[in-house]
Amino acid sequence: MKKNVLIVGAGGVAQVVAHKCAQNNDVLGDIHIASRTVEKCEAIIRSVHEKGAMKVDGVIEAHALDATDVAATTALIERTKSQIVINVGSAFINMPVMSACIATGAAYIDTAIHEEPDKVCETPPWYGNYEWKRREECEKAGVTAVLGAGFDPGVVNAYAALAREEYLDRIDEIDIIDVNAGSHGCYFATNFDPEINFREFTGQVWSWQNGEWTSNTMFERGKEWDLPVVGRQQTYLTGHDEIHSLSQTMNVPNVGFWMGFGERYITVFTVLKNLGLLSEKPVTTAEGQEVVPLKVVKAVLPDPASLAPDYTGKTCIGDLVKGEKDGQAREVFIYNIADHADAYREVGSQGISYTAGVPPVAAAMLIANGTWDVGRMVNVEELPPRPFLSLLADIGLTTWVREGEEDREIYGRTAGA
Amino acid sequence: MKKNVLIVGAGGVAQVVAHKCAQNNDVLGDIHIASRTVEKCEAIIRSVHEKGAMKVDGVIEAHALDATDVAATTALIERTKSQIVINVGSAFINMPVMSACIATGAAYIDTAIHEEPDKVCETPPWYGNYEWKRREECEKAGVTAVLGAGFDPGVVNAYAALAREEYLDRIDEIDIIDVNAGSHGCYFATNFDPEINFREFTGQVWSWQNGEWTSNTMFERGKEWDLPVVGRQQTYLTGHDEIHSLSQTMNVPNVGFWMGFGERYITVFTVLKNLGLLSEKPVTTAEGQEVVPLKVVKAVLPDPASLAPDYTGKTCIGDLVKGEKDGQAREVFIYNIADHADAYREVGSQGISYTAGVPPVAAAMLIANGTWDVGRMVNVEELPPRPFLSLLADIGLTTWVREGEEDREIYGRTAGA
Repeated sequence: MKKNVLIVGAGGVAQVVAHKCAQNNDVLGDIHIASRTVEKCEAIIRSVHEKGAMKVDGVIEAHALDATDVAATTALIERTKSQIVINVGSAFINMPVMSACIATGAAYIDTAIHEEPDKVCETPPWYGNYEWKRREECEKAGVTAVLGAGFDPGVVNAYAALAREEYLDRIDEIDIIDVNAGSHGCYFATNFDPEINFREFTGQVWSWQNGEWTSNTMFERGKEWDLPVVGRQQTYLTGHDEIHSLSQTMNVPNVGFWMGFGERYITVFTVLKNLGLLSEKPVTTAEGQEVVPLKVVKAVLPDPASLAPDYTGKTCIGDLVKGEKDGQAREVFIYNIADHADAYREVGSQGISYTAGVPPVAAAMLIANGTWDVGRMVNVEELPPRPFLSLLADIGLTTWVREGEEDREIYGRTAGA
Repeated sequence: MKKNVLIVGAGGVAQVVAHKCAQNNDVLGDIHIASRTVEKCEAIIRSVHEKGAMKVDGVIEAHALDATDVAATTALIERTKSQIVINVGSAFINMPVMSACIATGAAYIDTAIHEEPDKVCETPPWYGNYEWKRREECEKAGVTAVLGAGFDPGVVNAYAALAREEYLDRIDEIDIIDVNAGSHGCYFATNFDPEINFREFTGQVWSWQNGEWTSNTMFERGKEWDLPVVGRQQTYLTGHDEIHSLSQTMNVPNVGFWMGFGERYITVFTVLKNLGLLSEKPVTTAEGQEVVPLKVVKAVLPDPASLAPDYTGKTCIGDLVKGEKDGQAREVFIYNIADHADAYREVGSQGISYTAGVPPVAAAMLIANGTWDVGRMVNVEELPPRPFLSLLADIGLTTWVREGEEDREIYGRTAGA
């Protein structure tokens, strides 16, 4: 049994994490939020109080923290007696935060793969570049580290595990499909940190095909799907974290990730990329100033959190899994539908932040009650999926399955309660 | 009679100016080139020697100069005994360079209106904001200051004066049409300083309609023309320097400027502008760095000078002038055709730099021989157009007129020689 949660980061996802922790603070204990900019933590706490989100009386506190400073993070974990750290800060801080967890024995949860600021799209599998190198270190320290426990990666990994346990004897192909059919009303905006968003698409697109890493360029392979609720949607083969674990842990020959993009996104992305404005390498202006173009692009774009109040429409994210069951070909699509406006009403965030922020809290609760407190480093598909999906349904994300013409809710709010 | 020329600036246009001064150094005397980066001046001088451009033995020297430093510029003018200054540096240095000319009595020539870095598209007429405020000062000092003596503004102003003197008793409308039908082979590039290029189009589009300033937005009003040599071309109503003098000096009710744009330019411009990346106002990155987005865009785009070797195709720039002659409606299009590859062979620059760089040298030669040495501040249309157009034909830019179906060369190389 572990308790007291330190949330690192204060962006749109952290806002959802804080609200969900507050709604479940009977299980999770004290809540601490730390970020470079303490005012952002304080704003989140104000919003938690405004919504009356604290289930029981308890602690929720803001802290200023440079999370690249391992000693400072270690000290904060110790001082706050936090036994669970939910890292939803920038993807550049995963390794130092993990170090602080190993130093203190606190459980570690993140939602995206570690990145170094000056490198884009490293050799697959990406987890092998940083995270998995520390498996032994975690095991030795008995530290539970759950990697990629957002929606995708995260819930979609659990969907893959569920497909294996429940729907198929043999899996031939997993296609993860992520479509945001919502509208934010701006000329252009990314739904999470623009820097991380663009970095996903500027390098090679790695997918796992016939048991091998295959490289494409962005927007090279497109595919239209007819999806539940959101209907016909155009997507493109995209590099994404979960391919880099599912391909290694599941013994499946084909894993691909398909993300929905509108024409506007493609136009803006194409212009910025071709001009060199998405580069993470510094350029020098005529005046002699060294600047990373991508950071300037981030600075001019809307703050993703600012989109929430006017966001409408729904997201559909899921796994299309194909293979064989009892000697018969079988195909299931396991998915979630989230609504932007519903998310905003509940926690003051848009749907993308909501789907990313609820799962790490479920993971924290499963560590708190021991179910997932495995004392080593794991990806989500290596953990039992049913308690996770059941708990997710209770705290805001239901799971459906489409097979043939039929859509069925398999983890609903009441079913799991 | 004035001699010895100081060229301020070392970009693509300065390269053409240096070559043309060298080709006419029997008239112009010593040539000095000054810029912040002295290496760029030295590269230009090397290119002048490589082409054997010096007509007679003489001086051509490079100097490091911060042209915003009036005292330094004054000292350089005095030390080099320059009686004519051709300012083809950034549009931000016009006023300080003019101050140095007034201090020394040197004649001043520029090719674009003065701008302040932090302001875009000020109140019309633009010349009224900086240049014309100093008319009295120039008159008192007896300083010849020829404003906007490039191609447009510059030659097109002389075309307007010629139309008034030769073709029409009454002018109702002047449409200046600027089409670059050339191709540089890059995804995207501007033909001159991207910062100045984009600044032309980010503010309001001012035109002079029915004797009044009229404001449109960029790409709001399009028009296709069937032009000599380059054929059918799509253009858009654009704000441009010469509208701001012709409207005030010519007593003409309508002056508009139409610039040709391809689809690629419009797409890139629209994306950059809508995202805020063309802003001249600093933004702050997440890391706390203050950056002017437009300067970063400039830093990632190709150096316009680098386009020259592979540039093919032609430009067509001219004045469509409508009015009445001897009681009859009359319409003439006075124009020039320039060829990118020809320009590169002759002076190592592309056609846009060539058409902008030859005219200020013609102006300098007319000041040197006294024809244009008027001892006060003038715009080009206030000076006799014939000697200018005749000299331009001799040194590389011929003038044609289209009337009805007929195209006629009115200032050709031999005609004016």
